[in-house]
Amino acid sequence: MKISKLVGERTKEIPSGVVAKSHEYLLRAGYIKQVCNGVFSLLPPAYRVQAKLEKIIREEMDKIGGQEVLLPVLMPKELWEESGRYTSIGSEMFRLKDRAEHDMVLGMTHEEAAVHLVKNTIKSYDQLPFMIYQIQTKLRDEPRSRAGLIRVREFIMKDAYSFHKDKNDLENYYNKVKEAYFKIYKRMGMKNVVSVKSDSGMMGGKIADEFMLITDIGEDSLVVCDSCDYSANMEVAESILDVYESQEGQYELVNTGESKTIEDVCKLLNVKPEQTCKAVCYYLSKSKKYVIAFIRGDLEVNEIKLRNLLKEEVVAISVDHPKIVAGYIGPKDFKEDDIITIYDISLKGAKNLVVGANAKPYHIKNFSFIRDYTPKSFEDISKVKEGQICKKCGKGHLKTVRGIEIGNIFQLGTKYTESMNMTVHNENGEEIYPIMGCYGIGVGRCLASIVEESCDEKGIIWPIQIAPWQIYLSPLRLDDENVYKTSEEINQLLETSGYEVLYDDRNVTAGIKFADSELMGIPLRVVISPRSLQNNEIEIVVRKSGEKIMCKKDELLTIIKNLIKE
Amino acid sequence: MKISKLVGERTKEIPSGVVAKSHEYLLRAGYIKQVCNGVFSLLPPAYRVQAKLEKIIREEMDKIGGQEVLLPVLMPKELWEESGRYTSIGSEMFRLKDRAEHDMVLGMTHEEAAVHLVKNTIKSYDQLPFMIYQIQTKLRDEPRSRAGLIRVREFIMKDAYSFHKDKNDLENYYNKVKEAYFKIYKRMGMKNVVSVKSDSGMMGGKIADEFMLITDIGEDSLVVCDSCDYSANMEVAESILDVYESQEGQYELVNTGESKTIEDVCKLLNVKPEQTCKAVCYYLSKSKKYVIAFIRGDLEVNEIKLRNLLKEEVVAISVDHPKIVAGYIGPKDFKEDDIITIYDISLKGAKNLVVGANAKPYHIKNFSFIRDYTPKSFEDISKVKEGQICKKCGKGHLKTVRGIEIGNIFQLGTKYTESMNMTVHNENGEEIYPIMGCYGIGVGRCLASIVEESCDEKGIIWPIQIAPWQIYLSPLRLDDENVYKTSEEINQLLETSGYEVLYDDRNVTAGIKFADSELMGIPLRVVISPRSLQNNEIEIVVRKSGEKIMCKKDELLTIIKNLIKE
Repeated sequence: MKISKLVGERTKEIPSGVVAKSHEYLLRAGYIKQVCNGVFSLLPPAYRVQAKLEKIIREEMDKIGGQEVLLPVLMPKELWEESGRYTSIGSEMFRLKDRAEHDMVLGMTHEEAAVHLVKNTIKSYDQLPFMIYQIQTKLRDEPRSRAGLIRVREFIMKDAYSFHKDKNDLENYYNKVKEAYFKIYKRMGMKNVVSVKSDSGMMGGKIADEFMLITDIGEDSLVVCDSCDYSANMEVAESILDVYESQEGQYELVNTGESKTIEDVCKLLNVKPEQTCKAVCYYLSKSKKYVIAFIRGDLEVNEIKLRNLLKEEVVAISVDHPKIVAGYIGPKDFKEDDIITIYDISLKGAKNLVVGANAKPYHIKNFSFIRDYTPKSFEDISKVKEGQICKKCGKGHLKTVRGIEIGNIFQLGTKYTESMNMTVHNENGEEIYPIMGCYGIGVGRCLASIVEESCDEKGIIWPIQIAPWQIYLSPLRLDDENVYKTSEEINQLLETSGYEVLYDDRNVTAGIKFADSELMGIPLRVVISPRSLQNNEIEIVVRKSGEKIMCKKDELLTIIKNLIKE
Repeated sequence: MKISKLVGERTKEIPSGVVAKSHEYLLRAGYIKQVCNGVFSLLPPAYRVQAKLEKIIREEMDKIGGQEVLLPVLMPKELWEESGRYTSIGSEMFRLKDRAEHDMVLGMTHEEAAVHLVKNTIKSYDQLPFMIYQIQTKLRDEPRSRAGLIRVREFIMKDAYSFHKDKNDLENYYNKVKEAYFKIYKRMGMKNVVSVKSDSGMMGGKIADEFMLITDIGEDSLVVCDSCDYSANMEVAESILDVYESQEGQYELVNTGESKTIEDVCKLLNVKPEQTCKAVCYYLSKSKKYVIAFIRGDLEVNEIKLRNLLKEEVVAISVDHPKIVAGYIGPKDFKEDDIITIYDISLKGAKNLVVGANAKPYHIKNFSFIRDYTPKSFEDISKVKEGQICKKCGKGHLKTVRGIEIGNIFQLGTKYTESMNMTVHNENGEEIYPIMGCYGIGVGRCLASIVEESCDEKGIIWPIQIAPWQIYLSPLRLDDENVYKTSEEINQLLETSGYEVLYDDRNVTAGIKFADSELMGIPLRVVISPRSLQNNEIEIVVRKSGEKIMCKKDELLTIIKNLIKE
């Protein structure tokens, strides 16, 4: 490919409002162009990288038995009503009417379409398990698209759906996909990838993992152990709590006046927040109930854990209920039907706490669970804090880092097969609902994430296996006949040897050529100059290391072959 | 691939309401599933064929210098307002609002997005010509989707856009694309493909060609010469008209009473329709003018030719104008500003016609153009009739056939570069608008068209180069240990030799296996049965010819290799 004909332009100016390196470089190096908020066109170099990413994904999906299909972007309302998601999903789904005024939606995910495709054609358990996948355009009306290709409204996604006869089979396959995902990211050249337990959100199901590329511009918070391989999304991370051991003291009612907050009460009674039990109030608007969440004073309630526990959306409120004494709430049995109490595990075995007395203006000192009150159960509803002990290894300390979500996998269960009434016969001839898993990778987001991880102050550094071209052929002084002839010859030699060459045939300075090759991130630059040709030599520059290699013309192929193998 | 795990089902029942063979077979053989009106999902076998079609297209586009890009499905209203098509295109364009109530459209074609992509980055004439293309989902709200994948509302399309410095360069490139298209169809295995001159419709521009696969279920009428290679869409087809030579007779006014139609006048005066001149009236609602189209009595006005001539939509009307004597209109100068007269070339040199006298109740006999009235010009506004003489070769007779449009190419001119203000510098440093061409192929429609052309009463007959699998491995009696072992061995042998094998591992009758392999259209069936194994023989059945070949096990690979090469 001659660069004089390559569509797209390289610029020095840093576009305004750009925060992510990948966004800046993909724009500046002529890879992408924004069409509107969250919608981009891909120029030829970006398309070339994307095609290579798709090929890697396809190969790994095929290796675990995936069958490629194509589900539609445009779907009728009725399909999404079967699963209930036409109403449960909000404005992130694009909706429209066709010419006959039928309600339609644009695919942001394809569980419904996947079940529709296989329903009635898969009839027996012995046709299970199977997995179908597609690589296709998705549309999602993100409220805040950002950072170039990282968060957009239109994107190419690989989504896969597997069907199983039982939970065990799903779990086995789920782990296979997990392995395949790590292989995919590795083959794409990503290094710092972890999988984290996550919340399944609108997908339904209980078990879900996200794949995170750890990088500072990531929008997700995750928790990793500094000793073992434990990692989890902040939303579901767990830890071992340090317990403050002490002798049980005397239960004592104290007048705390207008001191209601943990901060005020701690100051007044001279105790640390971890020596208190606080109450946080929520409202369940669907079942019209109040929730009092008790938790150790130094911790925060993780509302996602709370929602998953209660199986309903929770809203934090300033409580106003005749039986709840706001500011002085303490552990007790609330007999009212419209009040639910939840006790965090941080309170299990806790002693000598300051707690509310359920009467104004009093708190209790030296309150001990079990001795003074025993809740029905303790639940994990707390947010992990930096420095807590890892629950997996029991010794490492947890730290929080930022990551970009580059994939996710879900154990869906029977949410879709049940609601859409897809059954198969089991061994005994009974009808059962197949158990589903689903598995996504955003291709464009991977492309941008690779750039985030693999760049320097000069531009992109593509891993060679996914680079748009492997070699940037950069003759200096094309008006020199020897340079011209040698360049044409080398270009042909490299291309017929199967290498992808971007040939800078422009009549511009060496500075511009080198800067462009670095900005675009082409792994190897082959420089042909009048001076080096005097010694029959050619220069190779390795983008990643900056290493320069001088070689004789006839050694070029061998050296390049070795560099690419590395 | 083992058929027991293949997603999709083969059925004997002919689905109701199916008219096209391709629709029936693609449904019955488990290739496609309808999601809603004009929207289909592709099952794995169809996806495999489509991927091969895409590969062929990609290779041929790359050979003529195409650069693959990806333009978005979702576009903002503003982009389409630049070209004026936001308002000029009607309800075939899907429209929607995003969460911020911005008007958006879904891409049915991408001229605007293509110009947007390259505008400002291509600055000089020496960067021209170039061509960008994409293979991507298109959405078009067809009023009448039909015949399975033939006419749908969502489809994968290859669309390409070229940019040139002048008309000559566009014409050269246009012809290159035309050649590439014929190569593509040939490589896809289509035989009966012609290119026809066509109307450019909503695309703008003057020159356009459609590629037609000639088949009875086609929805387009086209005109072909039985002697040379002339072919054209009915909308633009031309012919040589037979002229009725005779001595000029005496101009004579006759009272025709209430006889107004050509039929009535012919009967009354005992002449043939070709000896008359009729007037057909239209209205131009934009410029508020009446059009009287004069044409020989046996011919019909081609409204598309008329529209292109007048550069405005025409509507046929029953005329009501004080200066027009409906039923008795004849050739003359209408002086009124709101009346336009057009004379078809069928009237050029015509003599002894019966024409209206522009006065009730009179016609004229023996009216001769030139002698009695000379219009400013004669224009081609007539529809071609079966049997007329070919204008290209001057001797063949024209016939009308039906075809499926499987691609189209347009010389767009500067419609989009001008309206979107894309300029480049020419040799003299002046700003010029690049001249564009655009080129489309519907991939799904090609897939269905191939089935239309290549099937029999048993099912599909895939051309081997695009078949989902080349070989259908069909063991009979898998419970026979020798059959089982040989089948596993052959399957492995074929797959490691690079062949794609669909392995029928089901415990069903030979009848079902053979019927399925024929319905699915797999080119070669390899049958392994207990009986033939006794002689160490294997049977190969060629789907297309029905030919059966018995061969020794160790000859199998060689014979298959030869069969596939053929």
